[in-house]
Amino acid sequence: MRAAVIHGAGDVRVEQVPDPVLSEPTDAIVRVSLTCICGSDLWPYRGMGEDQPSSRIGHEFVGVVEETGSGVSGLRAGDLVVSPFTWSDGECTHCREQLFTSCVNGGLWGSAGSDGAQGEAVRVPHAEGTLVRLPVEHDDASLPALLTLADVLPTGHHAAVSAGVRPGGTATVVGDGAVGLCGVMAARRLGAEQIIVMGRHTARTNLAVELGATHVVPERGDDAVEHVRELTKGAGTHSVLECVGTGDSLRTSLRLARDGGRVGYVGVPQDGEGVDVRELFGRNVGLAGGVCPARAYIPELLPDVLYGKIDPARVFDRETDLDGVPAGYTAMAERESLKVLVRP
Amino acid sequence: MRAAVIHGAGDVRVEQVPDPVLSEPTDAIVRVSLTCICGSDLWPYRGMGEDQPSSRIGHEFVGVVEETGSGVSGLRAGDLVVSPFTWSDGECTHCREQLFTSCVNGGLWGSAGSDGAQGEAVRVPHAEGTLVRLPVEHDDASLPALLTLADVLPTGHHAAVSAGVRPGGTATVVGDGAVGLCGVMAARRLGAEQIIVMGRHTARTNLAVELGATHVVPERGDDAVEHVRELTKGAGTHSVLECVGTGDSLRTSLRLARDGGRVGYVGVPQDGEGVDVRELFGRNVGLAGGVCPARAYIPELLPDVLYGKIDPARVFDRETDLDGVPAGYTAMAERESLKVLVRP
Repeated sequence: MRAAVIHGAGDVRVEQVPDPVLSEPTDAIVRVSLTCICGSDLWPYRGMGEDQPSSRIGHEFVGVVEETGSGVSGLRAGDLVVSPFTWSDGECTHCREQLFTSCVNGGLWGSAGSDGAQGEAVRVPHAEGTLVRLPVEHDDASLPALLTLADVLPTGHHAAVSAGVRPGGTATVVGDGAVGLCGVMAARRLGAEQIIVMGRHTARTNLAVELGATHVVPERGDDAVEHVRELTKGAGTHSVLECVGTGDSLRTSLRLARDGGRVGYVGVPQDGEGVDVRELFGRNVGLAGGVCPARAYIPELLPDVLYGKIDPARVFDRETDLDGVPAGYTAMAERESLKVLVRP
Repeated sequence: MRAAVIHGAGDVRVEQVPDPVLSEPTDAIVRVSLTCICGSDLWPYRGMGEDQPSSRIGHEFVGVVEETGSGVSGLRAGDLVVSPFTWSDGECTHCREQLFTSCVNGGLWGSAGSDGAQGEAVRVPHAEGTLVRLPVEHDDASLPALLTLADVLPTGHHAAVSAGVRPGGTATVVGDGAVGLCGVMAARRLGAEQIIVMGRHTARTNLAVELGATHVVPERGDDAVEHVRELTKGAGTHSVLECVGTGDSLRTSLRLARDGGRVGYVGVPQDGEGVDVRELFGRNVGLAGGVCPARAYIPELLPDVLYGKIDPARVFDRETDLDGVPAGYTAMAERESLKVLVRP
């Protein structure tokens, strides 16, 4: 079969790879119906992080179960499923507390020895603990929206939950990428009254406003802090959703928070510069978040996606097939495209 | 009148100072019945932090209202009151959200131009927003316990709340000082099932066990992390109450947290070494806390103190009069005394 493989910075190729086969009784093989490219795929594409050997890439997919191992009873061939961006056994001490990303048997698509989602098919370890059946037809028009349940929508939601967004509260969303836009949707869905989006890409901030943002702050750093304070009677916002992942962005986020407020961060931290807690202590500003346990949020978010209460498919602004994946990376890296939908 | 004044590291003297007088309509004058020495008083006493000119010191007191300004209607002469360790107007944007420590008109006893609590009387700005009347007689035996509402008890409670202690959860309390012991009481009160106290002062850890700790970990750093993991099936605890205030202690606390857990820190951070969020991201460990808005917690904690459900007076292991204050500092700085009660 064919799949995308990353060989190094800027070098994603679509290649012939071995067909996936069941190797454990808890496995399933899933034919990929839809996948997409994530902002976090761009970190290795940009050569950030440690050097890695060539590996499969992509971690978001909706697909159809083709085959299941002997230990899988809750899924069968023909089921349409969405996979969160990590697999998990559903049974360990962390899974029982809904923190599926810390599963003792868990892993991330595209990590060493695993399949990536940007391909024709995937071997899913711990299929029953991982996959969620979708109650729609295989060609339902909502599939792109449902694909966002794999990562980008729950990640925006995780930022909002971690930042303590509550009805009537105020929120700043730092970042106008796909996660930031999902953060705007999530903040609105959780009842925030004032939602400030920070970004300077006009098409994206316009979309943010359509999705629920009440104000746009194009500045960064000190100027952004000043602008947000102007919009909040000098106080900052109760919640700040950090959806970028740089040290600068995180430090700005902490300053944007109102005293007693909370920053929910979901951008993968790209540098090691620390946070000085002395700046937070006197103001009681908290910090929470991290890698999103998407599997935990899918049951809550699925109905709202299914019934159109939120339309996260709006983050997709380009569509391609598997051959178009390398060009998709280029388009996203150059910020020509917000998020690329892939139909293998 | 007489009051304690700190002139520099190791130099606390009891001196003649001007009697307090009403200077604003919102002031009250309170005659101090009971005060005490706080672990945070030891930071300037040890010469840590910036050099300050001589100033009044002490920030915890129970006392009797002697006189009120024309703008004070809810208090009158003769009322027995407890003061939180900061004053606040009760009306500003932060006070309305119960974050009294961020009051725009607030301040800390002993800061420049204010009275300290370790003296015979205190001018209380914004008396009505600050003081809480106590429904007992002036010589009630519960007064030392009620005095802990000024700071140490709510601060331990703030650590527990910030760390997300919940019924059936697990908690580690880092530090066996008076705040740590109040953290143990608070964690138990909030329903934690396993409460590990970290400390190496046997008399204090024994007291912690009497107050609700289920395990004692005398180690520090790596060894402490290993010991706590042994006690928690390798996972760490859901909540960690950081009650020390050094960078080492904070970093250890973050490592003690279970994945998905939270550190509530209330120890005044004494060094600027940062927290590297990359160590927290993958494990979804959050950080919250800061200077405790004691005023917010007094209404909740008061009944439990009054009716003996918790007995925070156990943190006092020495009693003196005003003349004994300098010796009290020495005893606490040398860890001979846990917390010194002062009857001016």
